[in-house]
Amino acid sequence: MTEINHDYTKLKSSYLFSTIAGRVKVYEESHPEADIIRLGIGDVTRPLTPTIIKAMHKAVDEMADGATFRGYAPDLGYEFLRNAIAQNDYRDRGMDISDDEIFVSDGAKSDSGNIQEIFGRDNTVAVCDPVYPVYVDTNVMAGRAGEYDDATGCWSNIVYMPCLKENGFVPLLPSGLSSGNAFKAPDIIYLCFPNNPTGAVLDKAKLQKFVDFANAHGSVIIYDAAYEGYIREEGIPHSIYECEGARSCAIELRSFSKNAGFTGVRLGFSVIPKELKREGVSLHSLWARRHGTKYNGAPYIVQRAGEAVYSSEGKKEIKGLIDYYMDNAAYILNGLKKAGYNVSGGVNAPYIWLETPKGLSSWDFFDLLLDKARVVGTPGVGFGPHGEGYLRLTAFGDKKRTEQAVDRIASI
Amino acid sequence: MTEINHDYTKLKSSYLFSTIAGRVKVYEESHPEADIIRLGIGDVTRPLTPTIIKAMHKAVDEMADGATFRGYAPDLGYEFLRNAIAQNDYRDRGMDISDDEIFVSDGAKSDSGNIQEIFGRDNTVAVCDPVYPVYVDTNVMAGRAGEYDDATGCWSNIVYMPCLKENGFVPLLPSGLSSGNAFKAPDIIYLCFPNNPTGAVLDKAKLQKFVDFANAHGSVIIYDAAYEGYIREEGIPHSIYECEGARSCAIELRSFSKNAGFTGVRLGFSVIPKELKREGVSLHSLWARRHGTKYNGAPYIVQRAGEAVYSSEGKKEIKGLIDYYMDNAAYILNGLKKAGYNVSGGVNAPYIWLETPKGLSSWDFFDLLLDKARVVGTPGVGFGPHGEGYLRLTAFGDKKRTEQAVDRIASI
Repeated sequence: MTEINHDYTKLKSSYLFSTIAGRVKVYEESHPEADIIRLGIGDVTRPLTPTIIKAMHKAVDEMADGATFRGYAPDLGYEFLRNAIAQNDYRDRGMDISDDEIFVSDGAKSDSGNIQEIFGRDNTVAVCDPVYPVYVDTNVMAGRAGEYDDATGCWSNIVYMPCLKENGFVPLLPSGLSSGNAFKAPDIIYLCFPNNPTGAVLDKAKLQKFVDFANAHGSVIIYDAAYEGYIREEGIPHSIYECEGARSCAIELRSFSKNAGFTGVRLGFSVIPKELKREGVSLHSLWARRHGTKYNGAPYIVQRAGEAVYSSEGKKEIKGLIDYYMDNAAYILNGLKKAGYNVSGGVNAPYIWLETPKGLSSWDFFDLLLDKARVVGTPGVGFGPHGEGYLRLTAFGDKKRTEQAVDRIASI
Repeated sequence: MTEINHDYTKLKSSYLFSTIAGRVKVYEESHPEADIIRLGIGDVTRPLTPTIIKAMHKAVDEMADGATFRGYAPDLGYEFLRNAIAQNDYRDRGMDISDDEIFVSDGAKSDSGNIQEIFGRDNTVAVCDPVYPVYVDTNVMAGRAGEYDDATGCWSNIVYMPCLKENGFVPLLPSGLSSGNAFKAPDIIYLCFPNNPTGAVLDKAKLQKFVDFANAHGSVIIYDAAYEGYIREEGIPHSIYECEGARSCAIELRSFSKNAGFTGVRLGFSVIPKELKREGVSLHSLWARRHGTKYNGAPYIVQRAGEAVYSSEGKKEIKGLIDYYMDNAAYILNGLKKAGYNVSGGVNAPYIWLETPKGLSSWDFFDLLLDKARVVGTPGVGFGPHGEGYLRLTAFGDKKRTEQAVDRIASI
């Protein structure tokens, strides 16, 4: 008799954003007239830019002609794209990353979910709290998280790094297990900066401390830099490889979803330096084996779209796209500040982290906002216990609608 | 200190097709003048058909306009595609499959690699021998395969179902473990028909026996029907759901890669009937959770291309595409028969299974063909120990080149 993966059943029945969608649907059914503005899920709304569209049409035409048709892509990505990425995102910025250290994929969600597979089940995982749920859930599914404690909202074998208001929502170096065990450094440390959900950033000195910690303890950092394109200020690292020693301890994940508006196009990549080894084995070779065995490459058309992002026209257009969203972020941040809310993020990130007023719980404030302002946010507690009392708003909406949402919230 | 996944290191260092590519590269370097014809990897060569190209251009244009732009797709696929699939591939053929039993993905390789995740690690897996390597390798990576025995080419905890010449390369029902344990039915049975690599098919009565076996023992069948579009003869099931009782024991995997020439476009789907449960848990819900957590849907443009496959024009064009390849298959089959080779497959499948002459090993014959005919095949032993003494040729090449390859082999 076939046995199921019992670790799957430890998860709550549905992914956070499905739960929100369900709740909004119920509200809509009872309030069919409601004009709801969605600033919850981090999904872009602006169309793809002309240079990208042109590249995609061209690639489609190539697929129509036997002379230029492309079948299976190389598992790890086409050379033209791996080269454009390594050159523009790394070497032009003074980082020593070679083309064949780039692994092209269908997005950072897949990569951040799949990367844990190359590690053993007995590793201890550390995450920020609050955190993008995929890091935790995929480790639960792999049997690495231990047991869930309803009272604390924590998993017994996961190390939480609280991101608190008093530290500017920046995590401290990980401590031991939450069960109070003696200190043992976590083996795998997930970091996402600019941060989802808080919008906080780590400056280079602080990130360097994590790199030093990982090298000292033999930990591996999985650095999710999906939002690096939104960094506006100097001194904020765009990549973990700006830090000394990162090549021997860090894997980086990147996405075209937010930087170039590709959420519906699906393209991302990961970077594993070749000298990154554990137990004498190259993590690059393990990850290459996973790609080769379970994945067949991103579509040719999509990889050409990715290449266009790095053209000079593409770069200009992408800057315009990001400016658009960051204008939204500024409007939300300033508008809500003026209305008396405690808000942070939104300066180097497309997310605004809003403290609920009067000590309301995240979900109570979610319901209040939905009912009184008809605005959908994401309850902070959905990202972890230390997200309780917060709500995440995104800057990815339409400009007018976003302004309208802020005005509505301000006038509750 | 981070530990790696030691199960990964049990695998041979490289995927079969990477090994072949490496070997051909070495040959090319020492024979730069050689005009090599590749009938090895099962990659299509014909361009996408006009209706599909048109649908993709239209979808690209929609992505260029804020009013029609699409961000994140639904995790399990757009309704328009799930409906087209369920209606055309199942309900129109008398099978009771609902739209929401369809899971759209980026291809059958990903699905066949990922599906094992929803099952526990202690299940015993049965595979045909020879077999598509992904089924075995992904179970090795998950720690389900036991230890590899170099002498037999077998994994200690995998049940092999030999596909022998005397049975027309059709497997018998699985026996116990190869180590000689008392009979215990395998928990997960992978079947791929029309078969890769042998090109053999299972008629409905034989497939029904597997379904009955699975229902009797509580096993789950993972039925890979990636090549169903190539079936020409009556009485050969296109889907396992043509068999009685399959809804309570079978998962089906499908692909647009071979049927519609999408190897570089990336689209496939899986089917899990809602009543398929094990230990009281719906496998549909487990698989949905995996999709929701580790995947972000296939690109909108690609899903529109998939929808176009089911239009009346699309169907006609696809038939022409398959006819082209099956003409190649017939040429290979007849040409090699005439030349005195023992060949099979190629009637309801794009693969021809060639017995090596004079008892040569698969790799020796591979080298001989490369050197004397400058034709690349796939060594049968790469698909499992019972593939030794065989070579797989594919019908996916250019017509002229395929004919040339056959003529060259015939005149060795």
